[in-house]
Formats: sequence, C-alpha cells, structure tokens
Amino acid sequence: MPHGIDPDQLDKLAEITVRTGLNLQSGQELVVFAPAEALPLIRRVAVHAYKAGANAVVPFFTDDEMTLARFLHAPSESFDHASEWYYEGIAKALENGAARLSILGNDPMLLAHQDPDCAARLSKAVSRAAKPATKPIANFDVNWCVTAFPGAAWASQVFPSEAPEKAQKMLMDMIFNASRLEGPDPVANWDAHSRNLKTRIDWLNTCRFSELRYRGPGTDLTIGLPDGHVWKGGRSLAGNGVAFQPNIPTEEVFTCPHADRVSGLVSGTKPLSYQGQLIDGIKVRFEAGKAVSAHAAKGQDALRELLETDEGACRIGEVALVPDSSPISRSGVLFYNTLFDENASCHLAFGQSYSSTIEAGSGLPLSTLRERGCNQSMIHVDWMIGSAQLDIDGVSKTGEIVHVMRKGEWAVSLD
Amino acid sequence: MPHGIDPDQLDKLAEITVRTGLNLQSGQELVVFAPAEALPLIRRVAVHAYKAGANAVVPFFTDDEMTLARFLHAPSESFDHASEWYYEGIAKALENGAARLSILGNDPMLLAHQDPDCAARLSKAVSRAAKPATKPIANFDVNWCVTAFPGAAWASQVFPSEAPEKAQKMLMDMIFNASRLEGPDPVANWDAHSRNLKTRIDWLNTCRFSELRYRGPGTDLTIGLPDGHVWKGGRSLAGNGVAFQPNIPTEEVFTCPHADRVSGLVSGTKPLSYQGQLIDGIKVRFEAGKAVSAHAAKGQDALRELLETDEGACRIGEVALVPDSSPISRSGVLFYNTLFDENASCHLAFGQSYSSTIEAGSGLPLSTLRERGCNQSMIHVDWMIGSAQLDIDGVSKTGEIVHVMRKGEWAVSLD
Repeated sequence: MPHGIDPDQLDKLAEITVRTGLNLQSGQELVVFAPAEALPLIRRVAVHAYKAGANAVVPFFTDDEMTLARFLHAPSESFDHASEWYYEGIAKALENGAARLSILGNDPMLLAHQDPDCAARLSKAVSRAAKPATKPIANFDVNWCVTAFPGAAWASQVFPSEAPEKAQKMLMDMIFNASRLEGPDPVANWDAHSRNLKTRIDWLNTCRFSELRYRGPGTDLTIGLPDGHVWKGGRSLAGNGVAFQPNIPTEEVFTCPHADRVSGLVSGTKPLSYQGQLIDGIKVRFEAGKAVSAHAAKGQDALRELLETDEGACRIGEVALVPDSSPISRSGVLFYNTLFDENASCHLAFGQSYSSTIEAGSGLPLSTLRERGCNQSMIHVDWMIGSAQLDIDGVSKTGEIVHVMRKGEWAVSLD
Repeated sequence: MPHGIDPDQLDKLAEITVRTGLNLQSGQELVVFAPAEALPLIRRVAVHAYKAGANAVVPFFTDDEMTLARFLHAPSESFDHASEWYYEGIAKALENGAARLSILGNDPMLLAHQDPDCAARLSKAVSRAAKPATKPIANFDVNWCVTAFPGAAWASQVFPSEAPEKAQKMLMDMIFNASRLEGPDPVANWDAHSRNLKTRIDWLNTCRFSELRYRGPGTDLTIGLPDGHVWKGGRSLAGNGVAFQPNIPTEEVFTCPHADRVSGLVSGTKPLSYQGQLIDGIKVRFEAGKAVSAHAAKGQDALRELLETDEGACRIGEVALVPDSSPISRSGVLFYNTLFDENASCHLAFGQSYSSTIEAGSGLPLSTLRERGCNQSMIHVDWMIGSAQLDIDGVSKTGEIVHVMRKGEWAVSLD
C-alpha cells in the first residue's frame, strides 16, 4: 500500500465500482485494465467482484516505466505496431459477456519529452487494433466502468508543491469526495444522484432541441443535434440488460451532436492530457461540422496529430453539459485527467459518437449512423469548454429559444 | 524497488534473460507472464527487450492476493471456469511469432490452507483452457524462457528465520549465483556452460541406451527409453530458427522416457510446490509406465489430484539428469520452486513429454507420438528424485551396462 492512501477509502471506492458502477452480475467475468501501480485498488476490486459472484477477475496492467522504455529504446518501426491478438482476445471476452473496468491513474505528462510523432503513430496503431474491443463499450453492449487510482506521478502533477505521499493522500481524498463516497451509505448517495441526473435528462429529452448555441469568452458556437438524439447520463442500460454507471465519478448529461452541423469558434477552458502529453489553450473553428482551424498555446503538435488520426477525428461525437457548481468543479482542483476534469465542465468530444445517444442507434450499420449525423472515428477525446461565463441556449425546430445554462449553471430549476 | 534487492543484480538477470535466455530477435513481440510483485524485474526486461529491437512487450500479471481473494470469496462454480479467450489470445501471439517469458516468484504455499478440491478443479480448468498456449511451448515452436524474481512470500519460505527484506536480498543472491551471472561477462559464462552441457548430451545421444536403472534409498526403478529418444539441455533450437535457453538457471540434460516402460519404486528427495500446495515425502510405484500407487507424507490429496488430472498425468514425460555437485545443489538451499530444485537434482516429470525429445517428433500427430512412447497430458510437473546416494546405469539394446552416475555424480568424465 503506497503511504498516505487510506485503505478504507480504497475499499469503498472498489465496492461502489463493483456494485454501482459495474453492477457486476453473478457468473460474470470481469476484465480489468489498470496501471500496475493501482494494485492495492485492484485487489479490493477482486474481493468485491468475487463476493458479487464473479467467475473470474482478469487483470491487464500497463506501466508508465515500461511505456517510457519503449520510447527510449525501441526501434522506430515498433511505433506502428499494436498487438491485434490482444484486443481480439478482449473483444472475445466482452462478446462472451464479460464486464470491463478501466482504472485510470497514469502520469498525465509521461510522454511530455518524447517524440510526438512516435506518440501519434503508436496511438493510431493502438486505436486501430483496439477497435474490436472498444466497439462493444461505445455501443454499451456490456456493463463497464471507468474509475481512478491516485498514482504517484499523477498526484504530484495535481499537487506539485506537496511531498509525494501527501499528494497521493490528497488526491485520494479528492477522488473519494468526487465519487460521492462520504457518509454511511455510498450506494444510497448514488441512487439519489442518479435520480437527479435522470430528471435533467428527461427534461432535455422532452425539449427536443434542434441546436445548442454557446456563448462565452472566446466561444461563439452552434451545435446541431440530429433528429432522434437521446440525452443520457448516470445510470445506463447495457445491451446485456444490466443497469450500470459507466463513470465513477460522473456529473455529465450528454448526447450526440450532428457531425455536419457544428459551426463557429470554441475555446478550451482546461488543459487536456492526451496520451501522456498536455494540450492547453485550445481554440477551434468549425465549419459544417469540421474543425477547419485548430490552435493550442501548448501541445500544438499533439492537437494536430489527434485531429488528423482519421476522417472523423476533426468532428465531434459527444456534447456534454455539466453545471459549473458540480462538486468536482467546486473543488477548484485541476486534475489533468479527463474523467475528473470533464465532470467539472461542459465539454465536447472529438471523434466517435455513442450509438446509444441516437434513437434505435445500437446495432445500426456505421454508414446509416453516419447518415443520421453520428460521427465515426477510432478516437473519442473529451475536451473541456465550460466555465462560469458560459451561456447556452437550446433552439427548437420552430426557432423557439430556451435558456439551458446561464453563467455555467442550469437556467431551469427542476426541483 | 523492494528493499534489499540489488538493482544491478536485477538488471543483469534481465539482460541475460533477454539476450541468452530468449535470444529475442529484432521485430519480435515479447509476451511476459509474471507476478505483479516482479515489476522491478519486468521493467528491466522491457528495457533490454526494446534495446534488442522488440516491437512490443506485453505483460500479463498474476497476483497472489487476487488468487487468494478468489479462494476466499468466489462462488464454487468459479473454480471450474478458466478464460479460454485469454489463452487463445496468447496462442495467437505465439503463432504470430512472439517469444514468451515466464517469471516465477509466487508464494509456494499460497493455497496451503485453501480447499484442495477447489485448487484441483481450477488447476484442471486452467490446464485445459491453456492447452493452445502451452502446446507451442512444449513443441519448442518459438523461443521462450523461464526465470525468477525473489518475491517476498517465497523468500520468507526459503529463509524463514530472516527478516523479509533480508530474505529477499538473500534469495536474489541465490538466483544471481544459480543463474551464473557472476563476473564481468555473464554471456560468456553461459556460452561455456552450454558447451559443457552439449558435450554431455552428445555422449548420451551416442550411447543410445534402451533403459536407465536407478538405485538409491527407497528407489529401485527402471525407465525404458523409446527408440529415437533425443537427449537435450541448455541451448535449444526453436521451430522459428532461434537458438534459446529455455530455463535460467539450468543444469539438466533430459530426454523422453517410454510412457509404457517404467517399472519399480521411486522416492522423492525434495518437496514439490504444486499450485500453491506443498507435496513432500513422495513414494511412487510404477508398473508398465503407470503409477499404480503413490503416497506423500505431506500433501497426499494434492498428489492424488495431480495424478488424476487426466490419463497421462500418472505416467512420466521427462527424465532428467543433474549431478549432485551442481551449483544449486551445492548451495544446500531448498527453494520450494521447481526451476531451482529440479536443477539441483535428478528428476522426472509427470505428464506431457516434449516432442523435441524424440527424433522428428515435432509436428507428428499426438497419436503417433504416443505410439512411439511419448506421454501425452495437460500437465507437466517435475519432481526431484536425485541425491548423493543415487546410482544410475544405462543399458544398451544388447544388454551392455554403462555406469552413468555413481553417488549422484557423472560416472564418466568427458573433459
């Protein structure tokens, strides 16, 4: 156990992840992706998974030092190689009904000093090879969850002036609070939170907006929403019939933007850690859905590589709303990790859309989804555009304007 | 880095494993199986693998605490389940040309207090599911290697009266010395060692014994050798054309016994750790190749389960000769780990034979191999029968008797 991390907090995080996040079913296999450093959390996940009746917990570890060894020593050709057999195996597991847990916690700056071209090539090779394993996740075919462990390098990035052990303890506290684990009954916390998100989702689905208009500092953007778009968030129903919470924590409600109907200028409001590189000060201009110009004050090369991954990488596949008063936002901490930062801020995602955010979308051929406006790409990268200065209007088909957010907060109370 | 382990020793072990053990080729993938605890060694393996031109190092970790969580909390049905997709993925990797490294180091007593029936069922389910992944190893289709990391629980088992950190340091010293890493040029050490083993192998292959006769305390055993048996050891040539050292350390020369021509009584001389359980004081009587009675002073249930795994589990698939003066034997340490204990002692293996230990055996149908006397089973478990009191004679087809070993040492000097 790394010093400074409270084992009781880890155990509660593991329990909510298995019970509420995954809602793991008796007889299910559980496939876990995690940094090797997260072993103390994975061990508690295994305990709760087997208590829930798992028939196997199969861990797949990554390790920052091993990744770095590749960048420091591997031949150049290696960066175009990804192990297809590995992802085909995972795809088979999911096809057989396994649940999937991803534990985040790697160093957000791991590759800051490595060749961005190698990073981009490797990322592209992995995204392509991983497609069979990511598709059932994007399609919500099975129950899955993403949560986080306070890795040492990540903690020191978030709290640079603290000693490493103190930083890990502080980041664990932040994860604990953001994950709504306080009090005697975290499962009840999550039930209440899910009901609140559901109320907001139901309202948005009733509104049936044709487009959303964003205005804020450096932002004047219109996002078309396709016919039959579906707002989602919090608890979701997987294709295997299991109700699960894909992210712990989560504060967002989200839907599918129309891949060809996004126009105007939008400015990022938080840095984005992508594949071990930091991208900050993002400004993107969209025309007919496509990013026609994109600049970053920091990490311009990484941003360019990201947007050039494939045809759909420069269009958006998710639009998500988060009030500026969300607990994660209120903490005032910049996490350098999208799972947290996206839940502190309205955001968009470059790349792949979720087929479950369009009516009857699951199982449709990709070409049909694309015709309906659902973007297709091998990447899905969230980036934060929300702030306390952001106003958002919803526009109906008939041109009626509804205030959705004012100064970063919901404009309509639903209590 | 666990305290007490010298990082230079680990680095040298990693380097010899990659360069001499695996002889990893540029452009090869490397699949690594290891306890999560062995991360400091795996990281150095990754460095040397990428330096050798690996195009990916893909680690698969196991963890004793996660295994124990299964025994403590999982439903009974889970012990009949193994993840076929997992082993099919590994099989695909090997088929595509990946090399395989196994790092040992788990707690040899992990399951001592768990239900032996569950352990046997799980072991059987895993052996069956793993068949596609173990076959290319048993066939020497690709270059592979087994080495070890001094895990904390294992070190405390070997040196029970030492503090944990001291025990790990001591076990690392033992692994280092047994692996012939002393001095300025470990690769040269291994070249010399390989030449010595080769001389002994060439002699045995010239002798073409029809059977071996063992006599020692509690042992009076005859082992028939099939026509066309091939003695092997040290450096081997894999089907992919790469010369590799399957075990680091290694001291044995071995061949294929005839599955139907083993008779008499044999007594084990060291305890055997099998699937987290200790089996000691083994006495087995063979008739026509089959173990017709088997007793263990300790771990009788585990021995019985082992021999009942399948039809071939109660016959032997490997006969190996190691002089009692081998460096590992001279250390006087009992490792509770077969990689070391088998290299301190003449041994036999229950179960699967290596098709490369019979002339033109690789690629033959299993039924043909079996007809030629090569045992078939889903297990391969070495157990130690050597001692300073053991005499072995070789008998030629014409009945000529040659002294092979006297009092545990080679009877014929080949210097």
